Amino acid sequence: MTFIPDPCARPDHAFPDDEREAVYRAIFSRRDVRSQYLPTPVPVSVLGRILNAAHHAPSVGFMQPWNFLVVESPEIKRRVHDAFARANAEASELFQGEKGTTYRKLKLEGILESPVGVCVTCDRTRTGPLVLGRTHMATMDLYSSVCAVQNMWLAARAEGLGMGWVSIFHESALQDALGIPPHVTPIGYFCLGYVSHFCPKPDLETIGWLPRMPLEELVYFDQWGHGGGQHPLVDHLRARPDQPGLGKQ
Amino acid sequence: MTFIPDPCARPDHAFPDDEREAVYRAIFSRRDVRSQYLPTPVPVSVLGRILNAAHHAPSVGFMQPWNFLVVESPEIKRRVHDAFARANAEASELFQGEKGTTYRKLKLEGILESPVGVCVTCDRTRTGPLVLGRTHMATMDLYSSVCAVQNMWLAARAEGLGMGWVSIFHESALQDALGIPPHVTPIGYFCLGYVSHFCPKPDLETIGWLPRMPLEELVYFDQWGHGGGQHPLVDHLRARPDQPGLGKQ
Repeated sequence: MTFIPDPCARPDHAFPDDEREAVYRAIFSRRDVRSQYLPTPVPVSVLGRILNAAHHAPSVGFMQPWNFLVVESPEIKRRVHDAFARANAEASELFQGEKGTTYRKLKLEGILESPVGVCVTCDRTRTGPLVLGRTHMATMDLYSSVCAVQNMWLAARAEGLGMGWVSIFHESALQDALGIPPHVTPIGYFCLGYVSHFCPKPDLETIGWLPRMPLEELVYFDQWGHGGGQHPLVDHLRARPDQPGLGKQ
Repeated sequence: MTFIPDPCARPDHAFPDDEREAVYRAIFSRRDVRSQYLPTPVPVSVLGRILNAAHHAPSVGFMQPWNFLVVESPEIKRRVHDAFARANAEASELFQGEKGTTYRKLKLEGILESPVGVCVTCDRTRTGPLVLGRTHMATMDLYSSVCAVQNMWLAARAEGLGMGWVSIFHESALQDALGIPPHVTPIGYFCLGYVSHFCPKPDLETIGWLPRMPLEELVYFDQWGHGGGQHPLVDHLRARPDQPGLGKQ
């Protein structure tokens, strides 16, 4: 196995501080946008960069199992919205009491008002049945497509576009609306567009649906449930340093 | 439903060009690293920022289903490596002919030589059985943890750290090695550390395992299989603009 020579060998591969901050700014200021879409068209150069970012996600065995189904037709958006509305009517019945009241007030998608929809999929048959790295974890191809989604999301944020993940569908209804064959799994339907604003926190955190969990409670050491006690990382996380990259906003 | 006022409302939420380029640079220069780890310790401040980036991934219903199991003990690394080696011996038997010869030469993990391992998990019971947005797509919680993985990967790249996804495990063997209970799904085991270099392309592309697919063949319009013909996005993608963010390397 030979590798072509590395043209960028440096003793330290860290980004300069301002570039590193920019990456964190995208990560921390990214939001799941449902409500603030503007009708401003998305230029093809911008959409192209975002999809190219998605296409450069890691994929198991380099299988690149994704497709990007770009939805601009109002009629197709309407079909997708109908599929959402049917599933959401079922979902809203499941939440009782105060949660139910809150659920039924929530706006959970921007399918009709966002200028572009993108359905990201996973073709589970791509490159054949045997995939390097998928031999023991059958979900690895789905996870590759999800990595593409997150690349898309961060690229969109850097471009000033909001993106929202719509997941409240019967899978078969979304496949029907978009003509997706059975061997292809829709990972999600994503609304994409310029926005009036990005909210400072996730909507569900802001309205008190659930709180942000303290990170130090989610970190274990060497074995599940071992909280690390005096591990310096725990002390560091408890001190809650500012989120880098947000100072500039 | 009320939202707190947006402190960062601007007519244009796009990042300045240099910051946008930095985000793309992280996306395009990120690699799945298996071979180039240095023993240099990872400072807790750096590891803390990377895990905080992961913790700020999107999660369905804001359930934050992830945990981060940090592995530093050589004994535990050895157990994880044993679980990999058993599964990989099985996997390598599945690849025949030339692919089999190539497979058996590949280095697919850096478990023992990377200074830090992180197992990212998904607790499928977190916040109870009913999760907003997971009512119809049961895999949404797993996908949330994968978004955390991709945030981690890009933050690591910006910090100058390589990361590698090890997926060749029987799930139960990885759970056993790390004491992970049955209701918690390990998404993957990730090797993390400073590296001698980042390769310019994915290893599997470089050795010719599979080629990079042309993005324009993966994009459909309004319906599955509709290639868009004269859609300006297709023309744009065919022109293959340079990947932004890599000019500076």
